[in-house]
Amino acid sequence: MNDTSSQLSLPLQVVAAVRSVVGEGPAALHEPRFRGNEWNYLKECLDSTFVSSVGKFVDRFEHQLAEFTGAARAVAVVNGTAALHVALRMAGVEPGDEVLLPALTFIATANAVSYCGATPHFVDSEETSLGMDAQALREYLNGSTEMRGGHCINRQTGRVIRAMVPMHTFGHPVDIDALLGVAHDFHLQVIEDAAESLGSTIGGRHTGTFGVMGTLSFNGNKTITTGGGGAILTNDPELGARLKHITTTAKIPHRWNFLHDEIGYNYRLPNINAALGCAQLEQLPGFLLSKRQLFDRYAAAFAGVEGMHMVAEPAGRHSNYWLQTLALDEAHAGYRDEILGATNDAGLMTRPVWHLMHRLQPYSSAPCAPVPVAESLERRLLNLPSSAGL
Amino acid sequence: MNDTSSQLSLPLQVVAAVRSVVGEGPAALHEPRFRGNEWNYLKECLDSTFVSSVGKFVDRFEHQLAEFTGAARAVAVVNGTAALHVALRMAGVEPGDEVLLPALTFIATANAVSYCGATPHFVDSEETSLGMDAQALREYLNGSTEMRGGHCINRQTGRVIRAMVPMHTFGHPVDIDALLGVAHDFHLQVIEDAAESLGSTIGGRHTGTFGVMGTLSFNGNKTITTGGGGAILTNDPELGARLKHITTTAKIPHRWNFLHDEIGYNYRLPNINAALGCAQLEQLPGFLLSKRQLFDRYAAAFAGVEGMHMVAEPAGRHSNYWLQTLALDEAHAGYRDEILGATNDAGLMTRPVWHLMHRLQPYSSAPCAPVPVAESLERRLLNLPSSAGL
Repeated sequence: MNDTSSQLSLPLQVVAAVRSVVGEGPAALHEPRFRGNEWNYLKECLDSTFVSSVGKFVDRFEHQLAEFTGAARAVAVVNGTAALHVALRMAGVEPGDEVLLPALTFIATANAVSYCGATPHFVDSEETSLGMDAQALREYLNGSTEMRGGHCINRQTGRVIRAMVPMHTFGHPVDIDALLGVAHDFHLQVIEDAAESLGSTIGGRHTGTFGVMGTLSFNGNKTITTGGGGAILTNDPELGARLKHITTTAKIPHRWNFLHDEIGYNYRLPNINAALGCAQLEQLPGFLLSKRQLFDRYAAAFAGVEGMHMVAEPAGRHSNYWLQTLALDEAHAGYRDEILGATNDAGLMTRPVWHLMHRLQPYSSAPCAPVPVAESLERRLLNLPSSAGL
Repeated sequence: MNDTSSQLSLPLQVVAAVRSVVGEGPAALHEPRFRGNEWNYLKECLDSTFVSSVGKFVDRFEHQLAEFTGAARAVAVVNGTAALHVALRMAGVEPGDEVLLPALTFIATANAVSYCGATPHFVDSEETSLGMDAQALREYLNGSTEMRGGHCINRQTGRVIRAMVPMHTFGHPVDIDALLGVAHDFHLQVIEDAAESLGSTIGGRHTGTFGVMGTLSFNGNKTITTGGGGAILTNDPELGARLKHITTTAKIPHRWNFLHDEIGYNYRLPNINAALGCAQLEQLPGFLLSKRQLFDRYAAAFAGVEGMHMVAEPAGRHSNYWLQTLALDEAHAGYRDEILGATNDAGLMTRPVWHLMHRLQPYSSAPCAPVPVAESLERRLLNLPSSAGL
């Protein structure tokens, strides 16, 4: 920042810094970019009349996703919430169970647990990755649970804690190795919520492929979009086949008969949305590069602004930089709402992180660990305009 | 049929009759037709980058649907199953309840009941409309239930029977007046499954607008398609607002805050699918005319074939003729599988009706009334190629 801007108020310094990166005019938080084969594939879809549950783009999209992520199988579904719901059910989450989630997440993660008849149990995040804190979690579980019949039991509620759903927040990979260690020791299934982290890797391995399943989202605000859509990743081909079956009404293939062997879901991604996905996925490497460069530009622009910094990928892990995130120091947290007002007033769309789950009305009575770091992050984080096209 | 064809075996007579209507070449069961503004609206969607949860086509589609059906409000969702799930929940269906459904239906209807933690309770259909038989239902409920605390209680299971979901089978309207009478007398909510009956009316009033809610489907095989999609109809604006809220993660509108006041669903129809729907809906009157003419041609072609007839709309009710349905006489029911084989071998896609719900493995232990008519219909009905383009 130059001398002039440092004489501005802190909110206006933020406006100036963002403006120096994104240029003149309004900037959305995250806009999709359709500069590839979107047209061709949509036209192919319409011309073939296969827009719905039958059509080649669903298969193609699933294969491209598996290839890109290195998962043995990707199953495309209507959205990320549906992906989580089915993944939790297939991981054995049953009515009455508890599932560990970060308090700092989008409500869809908690809702997916509720759809299984289970209860979310919220835990703390760490400052570096913004995701579940493995060390704090281990200490918390040591103090509040006991193993009984091979299950981790919440001593306070008496319920089985069946699984954990670490989320790769804004694309930054969590410390999955440490979390897998906790999961192993406490007999928990791991489902990775990789809704935000398509393109994010740990040691070269794609997020969402470490747990028994991982889930992706292709909502309009994500790195690539299918309009609405999601996917479940797994390295177990047999589980992959089960996932496909249960997300397509559990219908047994037959030339004309309607036989269904279990209560399935109508969660299949329509072919027309998959067509968009195929075109978007082809452009993903370019999007990832742009987003990384955008981070570098923001980091430089905010280097001279006192009291805040851009959240960088954790050391040794590779982020897709889905949403660019500005962290205020604790001493400057009080400026957050003013900054939100000033930036949005200037046409630069920014937003705070989600309200912590345990303070939302529908989850206010759910079990919750002490979450001091999440509470601090909630006060101090803002997302900045993050489109690949910027 | 002429003298030559009457010397053919019965299955080959059916092939000849279908062929005389649909012409040479293969014929799908139901293919969509994209000859309107599909392309323009999709392009508008992509050019605006609003393909997902934000965008004008969702609003426009909902308004067009409300206008076409005469409902006070239509809420667009990802598919017909999601529409039923939410409608049942909003009608007050709770875990442990029972919900009356025709045994002759697609499994999605029963699954939607299961998603609410409730149990489907299957009842019989009538020969004329292929839908729920009001008279048989009244007698059955008189014999098997009692009113307690204002609720209809299944004497055998002790559970509350909360609602009924009549379905307008293949587009033919059920006897909704008689069913509403039964619902009134036994204190049951009525949710109409109008997934198949867009354009079907009773006394000029659209199916799906008689019950507290009605649900539509725009799957690829339906009269109009959005790729995948559905909608909930209601005449109660307040309920309409509730439906919109709960299908969009129950988020309270705010410039940037994430506040959710209940456990909602991520069921919103993406804008790109709604764009397709707007274009399709503009062509619906033409589709309906074509389908009615197709019925007339089938009826003429089968007039001379012994042992079977085309199922016509019930007297005084107006069908959309979604799927053309051939009914074999009981004496000729044994030919069904041969006819299915011969027609499909000839590239003319036909199919039997669904397996009755109470005989599918996941619902084999659900409560079930005697269903002699449904069992007879299951043996005797076939759907014929039904595309509006034929």
